[in-house]
Amino acid sequence: MRMEEIERKVIGWLDQHSAKAIRLLKRLIGEKSTLGSEFNAQAVVLEKLRQFQMDIDVWEPSLKQLKQHPYFKSDRSDFHESPNIVAKKTGAGGGRSLILNGHIDVVPEGSLKDWTYEPFQAVEENGKIYGRGSTDMKGGNTALLFALEALHACDVKLKGDVLFQSVIDEECGGAGTLSAIMRGYRADGALIPEPTNMKLFIKQQGSMWFRITVKGLAAHGGTRYEGVSAIEKSMHVITAIQELEKVRNARISDPLYDNVPIPVPVNIGTISGGAWPSSVADRVVIEGRCGIAPHEQPEAVKLELENWLKDLEYRDEWFKRHPVKVEWFGAQWLPNDLPDDHPLISVLQSAYQKMKRTAPITEASPWGTDGGLLYHAGDTPVIVFGPGETKTAHQANEYIEVEAMIESAKIIALFVMDWCGVHTDGEDADAKVDKE
Amino acid sequence: MRMEEIERKVIGWLDQHSAKAIRLLKRLIGEKSTLGSEFNAQAVVLEKLRQFQMDIDVWEPSLKQLKQHPYFKSDRSDFHESPNIVAKKTGAGGGRSLILNGHIDVVPEGSLKDWTYEPFQAVEENGKIYGRGSTDMKGGNTALLFALEALHACDVKLKGDVLFQSVIDEECGGAGTLSAIMRGYRADGALIPEPTNMKLFIKQQGSMWFRITVKGLAAHGGTRYEGVSAIEKSMHVITAIQELEKVRNARISDPLYDNVPIPVPVNIGTISGGAWPSSVADRVVIEGRCGIAPHEQPEAVKLELENWLKDLEYRDEWFKRHPVKVEWFGAQWLPNDLPDDHPLISVLQSAYQKMKRTAPITEASPWGTDGGLLYHAGDTPVIVFGPGETKTAHQANEYIEVEAMIESAKIIALFVMDWCGVHTDGEDADAKVDKE
Repeated sequence: MRMEEIERKVIGWLDQHSAKAIRLLKRLIGEKSTLGSEFNAQAVVLEKLRQFQMDIDVWEPSLKQLKQHPYFKSDRSDFHESPNIVAKKTGAGGGRSLILNGHIDVVPEGSLKDWTYEPFQAVEENGKIYGRGSTDMKGGNTALLFALEALHACDVKLKGDVLFQSVIDEECGGAGTLSAIMRGYRADGALIPEPTNMKLFIKQQGSMWFRITVKGLAAHGGTRYEGVSAIEKSMHVITAIQELEKVRNARISDPLYDNVPIPVPVNIGTISGGAWPSSVADRVVIEGRCGIAPHEQPEAVKLELENWLKDLEYRDEWFKRHPVKVEWFGAQWLPNDLPDDHPLISVLQSAYQKMKRTAPITEASPWGTDGGLLYHAGDTPVIVFGPGETKTAHQANEYIEVEAMIESAKIIALFVMDWCGVHTDGEDADAKVDKE
Repeated sequence: MRMEEIERKVIGWLDQHSAKAIRLLKRLIGEKSTLGSEFNAQAVVLEKLRQFQMDIDVWEPSLKQLKQHPYFKSDRSDFHESPNIVAKKTGAGGGRSLILNGHIDVVPEGSLKDWTYEPFQAVEENGKIYGRGSTDMKGGNTALLFALEALHACDVKLKGDVLFQSVIDEECGGAGTLSAIMRGYRADGALIPEPTNMKLFIKQQGSMWFRITVKGLAAHGGTRYEGVSAIEKSMHVITAIQELEKVRNARISDPLYDNVPIPVPVNIGTISGGAWPSSVADRVVIEGRCGIAPHEQPEAVKLELENWLKDLEYRDEWFKRHPVKVEWFGAQWLPNDLPDDHPLISVLQSAYQKMKRTAPITEASPWGTDGGLLYHAGDTPVIVFGPGETKTAHQANEYIEVEAMIESAKIIALFVMDWCGVHTDGEDADAKVDKE
């Protein structure tokens, strides 16, 4: 078969077997895989992978080992019964290798009263499948597995290796992907089907969390002039952060961000301080998320924010003797930056164009993915493309459109074949000639 | 005996029996009388009062009854085993009646690690007695009882009635004093020996608690421009409150406040909002204490603050569709305002002058007392004067100076005699003559 015939056959198979994908997604949603409970969902993945004649590696990440890595930021202390899976299909040779990476963990369902549907029962209605993780990102994972199943069923012989990764812990810092990198898994490129609404996200904003402690001096509210209000002082801190955000964003000239009001936000997410209505607050804690631009190094961004807040003493003398305390805590999502001319983009654009008869939209994402780790810690360039929509991720009544999921599986199948290369009949014939 | 002899006799008795006052204070401190645990301390008071041949009224306040009173603001739901005591010494007639009011409840001891002394063991050291409630206000109560004991021991025949009140619940809103008022106890004047450091507090600032809820619109921190930060909106609210405080205080021209930087503060005591560093906060709650000037009505002050915050929409359009919510919660301390020429002042000044050979300092207090209730709900003018120091109240290592306590008992004894009037021997002789 010539390449076009193979492609037609694969797409045809995917068209005929969409029920398989729907069934798989429903089973995955049915296994609630929040932090620490990933085991059963991974078992469903494993059962599927075993049909594809791949080399399967299943392991529980080692905390001890992870802790030695500078990019390990998770608060997690135990990976017992939280296995990672990597399944490798070794290519015939002569092609580019590819990692297909998806996280199996989902965020908690939140308040049940906000849900119209049971979050873990995968209800299908009007072409959508509802449930926690449907869009973020079991729908994307299903598209990957469905594409692999098509390639297997159609007996497509890839030249480059394909590594399918079902990882844990993306939602709280990426320990699953980091563990896979530390185990040696790397490739010439990677695709992560996070919910991009079928856009190509070629850059991702990273982020990390800060905690700023502002000091005051307690006093009785009736003589509040004898104290110093940490709440009032916090207003200087908030203003300073707002100005830092302006300065940081003014630097960004990438046209990808032309239509984004604040390309790399610094978000003040929480504030809490004071212990009693009738007392002057002697302490306020502000927590937030500092965006990291695709080209930035996290450590440089930390330093910039810390230095910026050192200048608070020029806004208010109080800070000279009582500087704020800055801590970086919790998870960290590394940014990702794919050069405009990287072949991952052109190959995926071409696959998209074949299916959709139009060029895809290319954007920078306002959130990080495990792609930051794959790139910074694993030297693997990453493109993010998937069927879900960001806006339903982490929300009640999260859903995915079945059609988009099937369509993305087709695009991914075409992409895999193009990226890795396919051993066609013609080549087989040539090879046989050579051997004979 | 002529009046001066009687006074000399009473002062002499007090000088000789200071050990009694010390012993009583130590016993009172030893009975931890925090909210709901006032029983044993009241038993000590009762035991003392029984020696003075007074009519004693002991009762547990009725929540049902209290709830009918507009000034009842306590969160307390049960007064079981929290008795109030009023002991009345009926005068011979022809004199002014007087309430001597002190609260028996104390605030919790707080963290033991902040204390050098056991908070409920009444350690005496270098002329001070340490312990929770020593200054606020078992020291003041002891001064009252010690003065009454002297009058009794010296067989002083007062003309006006004296009502000694040992009340519960001052620290959380004044239900004890309110219950005494509702039981019909009133007088021509009242003295409350709260810790004024021997100054005459002729006016008291009242206060009440507000809770302001500021709305925002949640969004992911990476696209924070899609949301509206309740934390940022809170800054407008804080600024508005700061300006309201300025406007309110600019109105105060009473020379008593000449040296007070902010006579009637509006204190923002707590702030909390936002749920996640990476989310835009959709809600912030601000709690604080609004001071009430001595001449003000609480309801008018509430209205002023509420209307002031309605004008937030002129600072930021967001508030037009999302006005802040204002609640008044918890306890309320009414202000108190004694006219400059009220005889309570001159009579107490004169008693002070007799003992100290100098004029007392007259001030307005930055905090409320049960005096606000006695005046507003009980039509009883109130002066506040006591031996403790405000600065040690509610603190670790709270103490009272023994000498100040004894001295205040002397001043109070002189004050009681002058206020109520004393039936002297001369009058007895006259009376006898009349009768004969």
